[in-house]
Amino acid sequence: MKEKINDYIESNKDRFLDELFGLLRIPSISARSEHKEDMYKACEYLKKSLLDSGADNAEVMKTEGHPVVYGEKIIDPSKPTVMVYGHYDVQPVEPLDLWKSPPFEPEIRDGKIWGRGADDDKGQMFMHVKAFEFLVKENLLPCNVKFMLEGEEEIGSPNLGKFCKNNLDKLKCDVILVSDTSMIGQDAPSITTGLRGLSYMEVEVTGPNRDLHSGLYGGAVANPVNMLAKMIASLTDENNRITIPGFYDDVMEVSSEERKEMAKAPFDLERYKNEIDIEEAVGEEGFTTMERTGIRPSLDVNGIWGGYTGEGAKTVLPSKAYAKISMRLVPHQKSEKIDELFIKHFESIAPPGVRVKARKLHGGEGYVSPTDQTAYKAASKAYEDTFGKKPIPFRSGGSIPIISLFEEILGVKSILMGFGLDSDAIHSPNENYPLWNFFKGIETIPLFYKYYGESS
Amino acid sequence: MKEKINDYIESNKDRFLDELFGLLRIPSISARSEHKEDMYKACEYLKKSLLDSGADNAEVMKTEGHPVVYGEKIIDPSKPTVMVYGHYDVQPVEPLDLWKSPPFEPEIRDGKIWGRGADDDKGQMFMHVKAFEFLVKENLLPCNVKFMLEGEEEIGSPNLGKFCKNNLDKLKCDVILVSDTSMIGQDAPSITTGLRGLSYMEVEVTGPNRDLHSGLYGGAVANPVNMLAKMIASLTDENNRITIPGFYDDVMEVSSEERKEMAKAPFDLERYKNEIDIEEAVGEEGFTTMERTGIRPSLDVNGIWGGYTGEGAKTVLPSKAYAKISMRLVPHQKSEKIDELFIKHFESIAPPGVRVKARKLHGGEGYVSPTDQTAYKAASKAYEDTFGKKPIPFRSGGSIPIISLFEEILGVKSILMGFGLDSDAIHSPNENYPLWNFFKGIETIPLFYKYYGESS
Repeated sequence: MKEKINDYIESNKDRFLDELFGLLRIPSISARSEHKEDMYKACEYLKKSLLDSGADNAEVMKTEGHPVVYGEKIIDPSKPTVMVYGHYDVQPVEPLDLWKSPPFEPEIRDGKIWGRGADDDKGQMFMHVKAFEFLVKENLLPCNVKFMLEGEEEIGSPNLGKFCKNNLDKLKCDVILVSDTSMIGQDAPSITTGLRGLSYMEVEVTGPNRDLHSGLYGGAVANPVNMLAKMIASLTDENNRITIPGFYDDVMEVSSEERKEMAKAPFDLERYKNEIDIEEAVGEEGFTTMERTGIRPSLDVNGIWGGYTGEGAKTVLPSKAYAKISMRLVPHQKSEKIDELFIKHFESIAPPGVRVKARKLHGGEGYVSPTDQTAYKAASKAYEDTFGKKPIPFRSGGSIPIISLFEEILGVKSILMGFGLDSDAIHSPNENYPLWNFFKGIETIPLFYKYYGESS
Repeated sequence: MKEKINDYIESNKDRFLDELFGLLRIPSISARSEHKEDMYKACEYLKKSLLDSGADNAEVMKTEGHPVVYGEKIIDPSKPTVMVYGHYDVQPVEPLDLWKSPPFEPEIRDGKIWGRGADDDKGQMFMHVKAFEFLVKENLLPCNVKFMLEGEEEIGSPNLGKFCKNNLDKLKCDVILVSDTSMIGQDAPSITTGLRGLSYMEVEVTGPNRDLHSGLYGGAVANPVNMLAKMIASLTDENNRITIPGFYDDVMEVSSEERKEMAKAPFDLERYKNEIDIEEAVGEEGFTTMERTGIRPSLDVNGIWGGYTGEGAKTVLPSKAYAKISMRLVPHQKSEKIDELFIKHFESIAPPGVRVKARKLHGGEGYVSPTDQTAYKAASKAYEDTFGKKPIPFRSGGSIPIISLFEEILGVKSILMGFGLDSDAIHSPNENYPLWNFFKGIETIPLFYKYYGESS
C-alpha cells in the first residue's frame, strides 16, 4: 500500500498544493467579526473538496457561531467509523509587519509552505482530505469515514459541544482522528497523548474616569497600569508557582516512575533555547522544561495594553489598563473551577484607588489518551511504516478543548496524529509547514486506516 | 484701564474666537512626524496674527525640529522688555472615540471651547496675542514686547535651548510671561510658583525571538509581559515610594513651616475624588494629595503594550513587551542624573530569561519662582483687579522643562500666569477651555503690563 500511496502523491502533488493554497488564501480568522463572510467561503471550499475527493455527501451546517462542514462516506454501516476532526479557522495575523510574505498569500520557499493556517490547521486537516481521496479512488477504504470541520477552534469551540449534542446520530463513530498537534521532530515522530486545559481571561483595571495629565495628578492618583502590573506580578511567586489560592488543589501529581519514563523522550535543551534565542529556560522550580509544559499548569499574559502607545512621549496617567491572561491546566483541574478561582482572587487583590473586573474569554478541559487502545496501536504502526521508527507517546502543553468534550458528549476517544513541528510558528508571524511533513502525513494516514480496519 | 479692556473685548469677542478657531483647526501634533507640514501652517498663522495685532515684525525661525515663531514690538529700547512664551504644538488625540466632537473641529458648547489645544496651549497663548493687540491699538503699551512661540513643548522642547543660545541678543528681556498652567479654580486664582521636572523613559523587554504558542511553551519560557509587570511592580514599594537606589538623594525636603503655609491653599479632597471618580486618592505615605503633586516626585507608567490586544482570545506568549515610564522630579533632582539611575536600575533588575533595554525619551528640570520679584507682584495686582482677590502662589505637579532652561540660558525668571482649570482635560479627550477663562485672561494680562511698567 505504501508504494501505491507514494505513486499517487507523486502524480498529484501539484494539484494537492494548488487546492490547499486555495483554502489558505481565505482569511478565515474566527476571532474577528469582520471575517464572518470568509468563514462561509472556507466552508464552501471544503464542502466542494470533500465531494470532489469522494464523499457521498457534504454540507455546511449552521451553528450559533461559525458553521461546521460535515461530510461522509459510508461503505458499510456494519463496519467501524472513523471521524476526522479539523478546523478551518485560523489565528489573527498581527503583528503584520513581521511577516516575510503576506499571511494570506501562501507561497513555497525553502521547502516550506508559508502562510497563516499552513500548519494550524488547514494544512494538517487537508492531509486527511487528500488521504481520503487516495483511499476512495484506489478502492482501499476499509471503514466508514466522517468529517467534522469546524470554524471556532481558535476561539475555544464555544458552539461545537452543542452541535455535537444536537447531532449525536450523525456523528456516531468509533474513533476520532485529529491532526492539529506537533511531533517532537522530523526524525522523532510522536503521537500526542495528553493536552492541557485552558482558562483564558480578560481583565480591566479602571483608575480615574478619564486620562489625566501625569504631571498634575502623578503621585496622588493610583495609576491603573502600575496597579495592573502589581497585580500580575503577584500572580506568580519567586519559584514561578501560581499564587491563586486553591489553584494546585486538583493538579494530578505524576509519579516519579512516570516522570522517569517521560524523561526518555529525546529533548535537547540547548537546541530549544537556541531556536527561540533565550539564554535561560524559566519555569516552575523543581520541574524540567518538558515537564513544565507537559504535566504542570502555567499562567501567561497573552496581551497587555493601556495609556499612550504611539510614537514619542505623552504625559498621561491613563484611565484604564487591560490584559489578557490565560492559564494552561493539567488533569484533573477543571477549567470552570479555575475561572472562578481566578476571577475571585484577581478582583480580591485590587489595590486601593482602582476598580477591577475579570471575565472569562474561553476555556476547556485537558485530555489524556491511553496508548493501549486499538486506534492508538494502528496509528503507531502507521508511523513505524513511514518513519521507520516507533512514535513516542507525548504530552503536549497545548490545548484542544474540544477533544475532552468529544469524549464527554460522543463517548469516543481521539487519536492525535499531529505532523507539525515546533518551528512551524503556529499562532505567530511566518507560520509555515514543511512540504516534507505535508506529504508525510498524506502517506501515513491511509496506513492508519489499513491497520485500524484490520484490527477492529 | 479695566473698563477700556472690557469694552474692547466686548466689541471684538467674535473675531477673537474666529481667529483662535483658525489656529485650533490646524492639527499641529509635535509627537507625530506625519504632522510636520501642519507645524509650518500653525507658524504662518501665528506670524500673521502677530503682525495683524501690531507687532513691528514677525518671522518663522527654523530649528533642527519644529520652527519657532518670533515677533516683537520695541517701543523704546531703554524701557523694560517682556517676552511672552507659548507653544503652538499640541498633544496626540488618541483615543479618538472618546471625543464628543472631533479634536480639530473646535466648537462652543456649554460655555466652553472644545478641541485639542483649546487650553494647552493655543487658547492660553492666544490670550496674550489679543491682550497685546489691545495694548497696541489703544496706545497703552508701557514696555517692549517679544513673542517666542515654539512647536516642541509637548515633546520636551529638545531644540529650544539651542535656539535660545543662538539668539541671545534677540531674546534679551527682563521677564518671561507664560500662560501654560492651571489655577486652583475660577473663584481661586493662583500663580504657579513651582513646577516639577521630568524624566521620561521607554523600556523594551524581549523574551523569545518570536511570538510563541502559549500552550506549547507556556510555563517553560519567561514571558516578557509577566516579567515587565514584575519589574514595574518593583519600582514602588508598599508606601508608594520609588525604589530606584539614590532616587530621593537630592529631593529638596520642604520644612514643616512651609508645608503648613501650603496647606492653607483651598483644596477639597472630596471634590477632587468626585471629579475624577476615584474612591481613594493614593500616593506616598506621609504626604497630603497637594504635597504629593506639589513637592514630591512620582513615577507613572504612561503607556504599556505587548502581545495580542485585539478582539477575542489569542494564545500567544509574546516576544516583546514595552512601556513608557515617566518620573516627575522636584527641586533639586537633576533630570539627567535620574535618567541614569533609572536606566541602570531597570536594566539591573531584568529577570532571568529576558533582555531589557531602557532609553530616555525626554526630560527637563523643575523650577521655583520667588514671590518677592517685581514681576510676580505686578501679576498678583493684576489678578486682584480682575478676580477681586489676591492670587495664591501654587506649586504645580506639571512640568514645563524649558522654564528652568530660560533661567539658565537667558538668565531671566518666568511668571506663570495660567488661566486653565483642572477640568480642562488637557492631554485627554475632550480638552476644553471655558470662554470665561479665555476672556478673563485677555482682561488680566494688560493689567500685568500696566503694573509691571509702573514699577520697573
